[in-house]
Amino acid sequence: MMVYPQALEKLIKNLKKIPGIGPKSAERIAFFFLSSNQEYIQELSENLSDLKDHLKKCPQCFSLTSQEGLCSVCSSEERDRSLICVVESYRDLIVIENTGDYKGLYHILEGRLSPLDGMMPDKIKIMELIERVKKEKPKEIIMATNPNVEGDSTAFYISKLLKDFPVKITRLAKGLPVGSDLEFADMMSLMNSFKNREIM
Amino acid sequence: MMVYPQALEKLIKNLKKIPGIGPKSAERIAFFFLSSNQEYIQELSENLSDLKDHLKKCPQCFSLTSQEGLCSVCSSEERDRSLICVVESYRDLIVIENTGDYKGLYHILEGRLSPLDGMMPDKIKIMELIERVKKEKPKEIIMATNPNVEGDSTAFYISKLLKDFPVKITRLAKGLPVGSDLEFADMMSLMNSFKNREIM
Repeated sequence: MMVYPQALEKLIKNLKKIPGIGPKSAERIAFFFLSSNQEYIQELSENLSDLKDHLKKCPQCFSLTSQEGLCSVCSSEERDRSLICVVESYRDLIVIENTGDYKGLYHILEGRLSPLDGMMPDKIKIMELIERVKKEKPKEIIMATNPNVEGDSTAFYISKLLKDFPVKITRLAKGLPVGSDLEFADMMSLMNSFKNREIM
Repeated sequence: MMVYPQALEKLIKNLKKIPGIGPKSAERIAFFFLSSNQEYIQELSENLSDLKDHLKKCPQCFSLTSQEGLCSVCSSEERDRSLICVVESYRDLIVIENTGDYKGLYHILEGRLSPLDGMMPDKIKIMELIERVKKEKPKEIIMATNPNVEGDSTAFYISKLLKDFPVKITRLAKGLPVGSDLEFADMMSLMNSFKNREIM
């Protein structure tokens, strides 16, 4: 086998570590970089190394922010401080924020409980949430962890810890996705949408 | 729409330029980088900016090489200098080289004729090939451009330019892919394999 020159080989090795990028794609991307102009490569390389330097974590909700101190949501005067929406990741925050519907605050757990993967309660921001509840006394905690086994058990675990606090704990409704057909619904979603049926 | 912090947004914008990487994949990759350790990011960023500095082009065949001067193929004593295999790209050279079967030299065109995309004869290394033939007097030029319309016309164009030189010009055989089933063969390959049938 003829090997690629070392500089190319090293880059392909790095790219193969990206989830979803196999050996062929890694080669294809490396060759794209090779044929790109120098400005693009320089910019990409700088943006990569700047990534972590320019992103800070909000000390209250653990959202990513480019400013020092609290993030734009936590520091906004227009948000409802009596509501805290608990999500697994920053991406989930973005998804909810983009609905434009939610006006409360967030709390990012930075993961979900998953003992098999070593994700124990102390690995995610659960204690920080309890401290916030103690200090900020919100009226409601909305558990918006993912609607799967791990997300559910994380929400359940947290709700147990919070049961003695004077705070309402809610969970995102499970049911049929809007705009879908009944025939394509999975059984669990359909069962949930029966159980949680609403009065018209 | 909530936008990502600027550092993340800039990186996503860069990643979206990679062919085959859509907006969703670009976000996914950016978040992977965000959660990767600093050493990996530093290494990737350095390998990216080093890429073009550490890769040189062979002045004879335009292959990529990490050494100064001629590449390892052109400078090897063991290669048959009377054969030049003409390919479109460095990747094609690697593919042929990995068969382990070909022992001649190469010439990389760095593209193929495609007037609609502005790829005219002066944009690819055709004149350099003619000069090589004049100077090196090889016995045979093997046209290994891709077996499609553009590759075929590139091969045809070059063979016309070389017709007055005392050099044999050959083209890679077209036919059925080895290990495939007849029923899955495309019509053109099947027609070609009939036309070029071999005596058993």
